[in-house]
Amino acid sequence: MAWQHAHEVRVRFAETDAQGIAHHASYVVWLEEARIEYLRAHAGGYRALQESGIEALTTEVHVRYVQTARFDEVLTILTRCTDVRGARFRYEYRIERDGELVAEAWTSHAAVDRETHRPTRVPDSFKESVARAEALARSSS
Amino acid sequence: MAWQHAHEVRVRFAETDAQGIAHHASYVVWLEEARIEYLRAHAGGYRALQESGIEALTTEVHVRYVQTARFDEVLTILTRCTDVRGARFRYEYRIERDGELVAEAWTSHAAVDRETHRPTRVPDSFKESVARAEALARSSS
Amino acid sequence: MAWQHAHEVRVRFAETDAQGIAHHASYVVWLEEARIEYLRAHAGGYRALQESGIEALTTEVHVRYVQTARFDEVLTILTRCTDVRGARFRYEYRIERDGELVAEAWTSHAAVDRETHRPTRVPDSFKESVARAEALARSSS
Amino acid sequence: MAWQHAHEVRVRFAETDAQGIAHHASYVVWLEEARIEYLRAHAGGYRALQESGIEALTTEVHVRYVQTARFDEVLTILTRCTDVRGARFRYEYRIERDGELVAEAWTSHAAVDRETHRPTRVPDSFKESVARAEALARSSS
Repeated sequence: MAWQHAHEVRVRFAETDAQGIAHHASYVVWLEEARIEYLRAHAGGYRALQESGIEALTTEVHVRYVQTARFDEVLTILTRCTDVRGARFRYEYRIERDGELVAEAWTSHAAVDRETHRPTRVPDSFKESVARAEALARSSS
Repeated sequence: MAWQHAHEVRVRFAETDAQGIAHHASYVVWLEEARIEYLRAHAGGYRALQESGIEALTTEVHVRYVQTARFDEVLTILTRCTDVRGARFRYEYRIERDGELVAEAWTSHAAVDRETHRPTRVPDSFKESVARAEALARSSS
Repeated sequence: MAWQHAHEVRVRFAETDAQGIAHHASYVVWLEEARIEYLRAHAGGYRALQESGIEALTTEVHVRYVQTARFDEVLTILTRCTDVRGARFRYEYRIERDGELVAEAWTSHAAVDRETHRPTRVPDSFKESVARAEALARSSS
Repeated sequence: MAWQHAHEVRVRFAETDAQGIAHHASYVVWLEEARIEYLRAHAGGYRALQESGIEALTTEVHVRYVQTARFDEVLTILTRCTDVRGARFRYEYRIERDGELVAEAWTSHAAVDRETHRPTRVPDSFKESVARAEALARSSS
């Protein structure tokens, strides 16, 4: 599968720790920012999801740290949505610095009703937008 | 005025930065934790406030950093509520390590309606609990 | 395998998000706090590791979120160190609220030289302390 | 005095809290990001400061919150360096959304030696760069 969405973050000073590197929990926040930007580019944004009465809960997070990152470095987060079925969807990520792998990650999510927090099917429009974006990525790679 | 409420925090690794010290924004989070514990001890807790339909917004924060703090150090946060009038109240803090001053701070807050976020008077029960707690502090110091 | 180490955290207000729940990145910070407390209880503390010229890098994080957690809730983090070999070690966690599973997690770590950040064997004293702690856990369960 | 430096941040989901707004400690992190960008634009960047053997400690933070901010909103942080003397300097900030005031802030800093953390004079090159930037701001306003 190809990567079609890229988002940049710059490591904040507040995101470093006393080892002199970006703290490993910071990556989890960056992945979320990358997902938000992915949704903005392809599926009307997270607010569109919220306005259709849905919140996306994170049900699983996996990060493999390959190299350390440091203050002020610019990292590129490649993001793809790999699986949308029923109330669940999954993202995969590659965090790079100058084309070199810094970390790999994936996250799983469940769409829930905003009020009851009960699982609810992802809207068809979301599913179709993601399918279109990912098909485009494959054809252009 | 006296200090009657003390709360301890231990500096988390995630709260340090690449200078090898506790990041200055971490203190703002600790002050909030100290306020929550103050309310738990004296005014039925923050949830009691929420259940009476009120949220407390932070309207002002001031911190003066006197000494740096490091990973794993235990800090004592002395807290007092110094002024409750109408929809507003104010806290003062002294952050110490082994009795030595690490930082001084104060914060201001506005009670607002949970739904509308409009200013609303602090409940009398809150005001009385705080007055009682602080009177006790003065008499015992 | 048994669980012998328990550490409590209380969900801070700053750790919640606009979904009204503890943000999923907060758990990663709590796991670190639990590891630090595990080391304090069993292996002379993280500072002992640092003083022997070693830093522990986090190389992998996996969290599975089973239930949401809310502001002010007290969570218990059960922690065990499951595998120490060469420069690598692994922790497993169970986050519970009143005995009910909130999240499951594991993390992997690499011991590195403080100065060069190159992999270095975990000190024997660390390995033995962990083995002793975990043997005790098995025998008492 | 005029404002000549503007930096944008977008409120992250992780920066919101259970009140549905950006948590007040997040602003302190944004101010730091704005300072870093100010230094990048005018004084060779924070790394230049570090390479001259200096770290800047934050000695005081003051934030006045005027309006709440929400997830995904874009905020503009206007920043100026108002006073550089000896080992000390001060920044002032205006956080706006669509030209409307969201928060006002100022911070104080001390230049310290990277190794000893003892106060040390700000390099003349830093002082001159800031003076030039701020003179330019005044003349163009």
